Amino acid sequence: MPPFERHIFICCNQREAGHPRGCCDPAAEDALQKAFKKALALRGLNKRVRANRSGCLDQCEHGPTVVVYPDGVWYGRVTHDDVDEIIDRHIVGGEPVERLRLPDACINTPACAHKPRPAPQAPEVPEAVKAP
Amino acid sequence: MPPFERHIFICCNQREAGHPRGCCDPAAEDALQKAFKKALALRGLNKRVRANRSGCLDQCEHGPTVVVYPDGVWYGRVTHDDVDEIIDRHIVGGEPVERLRLPDACINTPACAHKPRPAPQAPEVPEAVKAP
Repeated sequence: MPPFERHIFICCNQREAGHPRGCCDPAAEDALQKAFKKALALRGLNKRVRANRSGCLDQCEHGPTVVVYPDGVWYGRVTHDDVDEIIDRHIVGGEPVERLRLPDACINTPACAHKPRPAPQAPEVPEAVKAP
Repeated sequence: MPPFERHIFICCNQREAGHPRGCCDPAAEDALQKAFKKALALRGLNKRVRANRSGCLDQCEHGPTVVVYPDGVWYGRVTHDDVDEIIDRHIVGGEPVERLRLPDACINTPACAHKPRPAPQAPEVPEAVKAP
């Protein structure tokens, strides 16, 4: 048997309620990971594809995050309703689910459209040029 | 900034002492993952390479396990003393550390040299053919 054809990492990181970065698994039950695992087993794929719990994937502002390797395809705001589509279209069909995909520009960056940088401080104006 | 050039998953799974499958992180302190994280930061690589906590990678009989994606290179029995070599030789130099590498035949299989299958039961012998 070859190594896993695909390895799906599902963020199960927990943070306290109200944390500004959000939390991928507020119920701390690994429910999304278990849903992937069950969907793979139902299709007989669980010996070839692994649905793995993961610590923080550091894409917190994009909601519950999933990354599929070796493809390197990242998904954000993944819900239980998306699991079958990711498995059937991407894992079985080889075609990433574009509507859920995080663009490269959103990953591993300090700021993107979903991860706003704090508003810049107004530059200090020297006394000499201030209006009287 | 592009997505992570490499994504290292370090098993931080815990099991109770004495479990027959062993435990990658008996102290439950994520110490190996933190050592990778620190080694990356010391080399200024932490913005390009992520050292990620992972749930069980299901290679428990091979000791503390690490997998590097997108390469799909698996390492077993990884200790703190191996971290610098993995980073310098593999992550920086692009050459996997063969002495720690798990062969493909050891991954995703019910039995290998390190994961012995339970001894088969002796087949039942019908009464008629038993020696008197």
